Amino acid sequence: MKHHDGPSFHMSSAELREHGHRMVDWIADYLDGVSDHPVRSRSEPGEVRAALPESPPDHPEPFAAVLADLERIIVPGLTHWQSPDFFAYFPANSSGPSILGELASAGLGIQGMLWATSPAATELETLVCDWVVDLLGLPRRFHSDGPGGGVIADSASSAVLTALVAARHRAGGAAVAADLVGYTSTEAHSSVQKAFAVAGFAPDQLRLVDVDPVGAMDADHLTALLAADAAAGRTPFFVCATVGTTSTMAVDPVAGIATACSQHGAWLHVDAAMAGSAGVAPELRWVNDGVDRADSWCFDPHKWLFTNFDCDCLFVADRAPLVEALSIVPEYLRNAASESGEVIDYRDWQIPLGRRFRALKLWFVIRHYGAEGLAHHVRRHVELAETFEGWLAASDRFVLAAPRHLNLVCLRAVDGDDATQVVLDAVNESGQAYLTHTRVGGELVIRVSIGQTTTELDNVERLWGLLHDAAEGRALPRR
Amino acid sequence: MKHHDGPSFHMSSAELREHGHRMVDWIADYLDGVSDHPVRSRSEPGEVRAALPESPPDHPEPFAAVLADLERIIVPGLTHWQSPDFFAYFPANSSGPSILGELASAGLGIQGMLWATSPAATELETLVCDWVVDLLGLPRRFHSDGPGGGVIADSASSAVLTALVAARHRAGGAAVAADLVGYTSTEAHSSVQKAFAVAGFAPDQLRLVDVDPVGAMDADHLTALLAADAAAGRTPFFVCATVGTTSTMAVDPVAGIATACSQHGAWLHVDAAMAGSAGVAPELRWVNDGVDRADSWCFDPHKWLFTNFDCDCLFVADRAPLVEALSIVPEYLRNAASESGEVIDYRDWQIPLGRRFRALKLWFVIRHYGAEGLAHHVRRHVELAETFEGWLAASDRFVLAAPRHLNLVCLRAVDGDDATQVVLDAVNESGQAYLTHTRVGGELVIRVSIGQTTTELDNVERLWGLLHDAAEGRALPRR
Repeated sequence: MKHHDGPSFHMSSAELREHGHRMVDWIADYLDGVSDHPVRSRSEPGEVRAALPESPPDHPEPFAAVLADLERIIVPGLTHWQSPDFFAYFPANSSGPSILGELASAGLGIQGMLWATSPAATELETLVCDWVVDLLGLPRRFHSDGPGGGVIADSASSAVLTALVAARHRAGGAAVAADLVGYTSTEAHSSVQKAFAVAGFAPDQLRLVDVDPVGAMDADHLTALLAADAAAGRTPFFVCATVGTTSTMAVDPVAGIATACSQHGAWLHVDAAMAGSAGVAPELRWVNDGVDRADSWCFDPHKWLFTNFDCDCLFVADRAPLVEALSIVPEYLRNAASESGEVIDYRDWQIPLGRRFRALKLWFVIRHYGAEGLAHHVRRHVELAETFEGWLAASDRFVLAAPRHLNLVCLRAVDGDDATQVVLDAVNESGQAYLTHTRVGGELVIRVSIGQTTTELDNVERLWGLLHDAAEGRALPRR
Repeated sequence: MKHHDGPSFHMSSAELREHGHRMVDWIADYLDGVSDHPVRSRSEPGEVRAALPESPPDHPEPFAAVLADLERIIVPGLTHWQSPDFFAYFPANSSGPSILGELASAGLGIQGMLWATSPAATELETLVCDWVVDLLGLPRRFHSDGPGGGVIADSASSAVLTALVAARHRAGGAAVAADLVGYTSTEAHSSVQKAFAVAGFAPDQLRLVDVDPVGAMDADHLTALLAADAAAGRTPFFVCATVGTTSTMAVDPVAGIATACSQHGAWLHVDAAMAGSAGVAPELRWVNDGVDRADSWCFDPHKWLFTNFDCDCLFVADRAPLVEALSIVPEYLRNAASESGEVIDYRDWQIPLGRRFRALKLWFVIRHYGAEGLAHHVRRHVELAETFEGWLAASDRFVLAAPRHLNLVCLRAVDGDDATQVVLDAVNESGQAYLTHTRVGGELVIRVSIGQTTTELDNVERLWGLLHDAAEGRALPRR
């Protein structure tokens, strides 16, 4: 064959060090200065693309050029989720150890699809999930020393789909699927409906259970629906309860729901995507009430536990139906370790085959903060929400629109929806903070989700000032 | 509220820089020395876990302690996918720019679920997918300037599930699902079967089409199956063709398959997970033959395009059925940009809601290498496979077990399965290289998958020497 003495095109080890140090410093600079940017991007549709070449480069470009475009073109097109003034959607918070854990994972570049493809990836993941059981005070049934255990998924959306497929398998599989009925509340996350659609259920196979005035599932309505379906010869097989709804952080009555499920043999999945993190503070472990009877439970360290997206922990009480539903073993994946039965192959605990070494970042985060540090910050965010709630109680401009749960405060203007919209738009357009909305009882509501890694009292005080100034018609300063 | 003057627990900016530089250097050192490790881990089940504490730490630990455990406990438990002597499974290759792109994504920590949640994330992703259309010589129907376009998914497994759900929607949705029948070959990836199971199809709703002696789908058999199902009143709705089967890199006759699909209105998805990368070299663009009539096509830059897992590009000719099948819009996600219809919300192009900024790493890789650099390395890997094939042709110990396609060589010992197994085990146990197996026509076959970023002629020569020594019963040196 020919010899190739031309350029290697690869980034050399020396270049990786040099550019890597620059990239780390660039990130540290970005995070140091994140408050200088308008929180919500002011980019217009097509603006970012128009600033970039339409065709890929024929020849290599220097790393400095890429970094310059990142700074000049990409950053202005970002909404700054890591800003301490980000109160929108949910806190997709991150932290130094998480960033470095993700870096380590990218650098090692291993595949964790099977135990055999990198034993440490599987064993660290199982261990870290067991640590989470301890950290959050979860029921022992989710620890890997019994028939259950945990796995890291990309998101709570994938987790509910995985649980749904396992539940269908336990209920008899595709052969009986037309008789199956699932349940979740009208306030559950859209991912439940999406999971049912992906899994091939007809729309009427997912019942939406009423909620109480606070937004929590009405367990009596669930009980009635289950009984009616069973009486009609249908099979209630899956209930998704929510601990911390997206709109208002309402907490479904899991214990009552579990009782209803057990009467019909239905799988109980609990989606605790954001609220689950609260368990790191022992005084907030009421969020786990009733979970000891759930078949599966998930939460997102990538929401409120300082671990960058993607990192969802899904726990099951019994791994058998999960593995039975999802295990397909072609010849090219057969190996002695899998066939020994001694190891976990996480490929069978998820929808895709391949898997990144996500456990590293969660391991880095837990070791960096310790239980103490994690509890400190989660507790602190809840205290800030309590403080904010106190201001609202004394306000003549705004009222609390739903009971505060944990770190989410929902408010509206006393003057009605139009006034609420004006305030919301003014704050968001100022770039000083970013808030998103929902509707509660038909009324427009501003959500104040407090949980960014570096959000402190002064950020919340400034937000309160912005809301008040906007309500009183004063122009807000702009970032 | 109380004031907190205690420790912040966060990693400071100065610490992030210091530890980040160390982490970068650690990765560069790891990659420099990756050939010193046995390629396949020698870890025994439970060994990694036993070396780590059973409980999470109560208090913060220094970063140096985490890094020390990474080195001492985790690395020996890894199979080194980035080793130039890794010839197993598929080349999950990576590169400096990709690692730094992943780092940038982790540092920015934004959410790309909607255009509105970070416009640059969506626009860069659309642009980079359009760049890929150019780079690989894909049909124009996959460019975003028409009704089609590309999206980055985590894996080809998720891509086939997404395509399947879109195809079902186009065929009439869950209401008609019992009549639907899908098709793929007996040599297709296990993810097709898994996607059908997850999507709720009964096992008999996926037909396995025969393959020719080379392992490519028999288009005549497909045509006959389609006709028989249609005659029986069933609806053929989805065909998954494979460009580069996992076992032998066989290439299905996509043009003939497309003709059969079009007669029945079936959605044609093409899984080109590894082989799709070959299109970066113009002389290898025959891998795209017929793809101009596919409804969807995907490939994995995380296999053979120097981009660390996870990064799959899924292209569709028409985005409408995809978005219609997967779009669910709760109040809290409504926003003006989405409602204007001017922007893409990639949340509707995938199963989960949340999304990482994966486009960054692919953008970094394409700019670093340029089309020239990418083609150079892919071409080089194919040349190395040709060289290896030449050695086999002259061997009296081994024979080619299937025609070489692109970068995959399949061989077996002339003395039969037991001899092949002895050789495979000897090489893998030596730690000098790592190979996995498959079966072709019932016979045990060793796959030599050549595509690691730094694999060069000397790695392939050494592998050939190891195979020969093992076949002749000589003890192999151990790493």
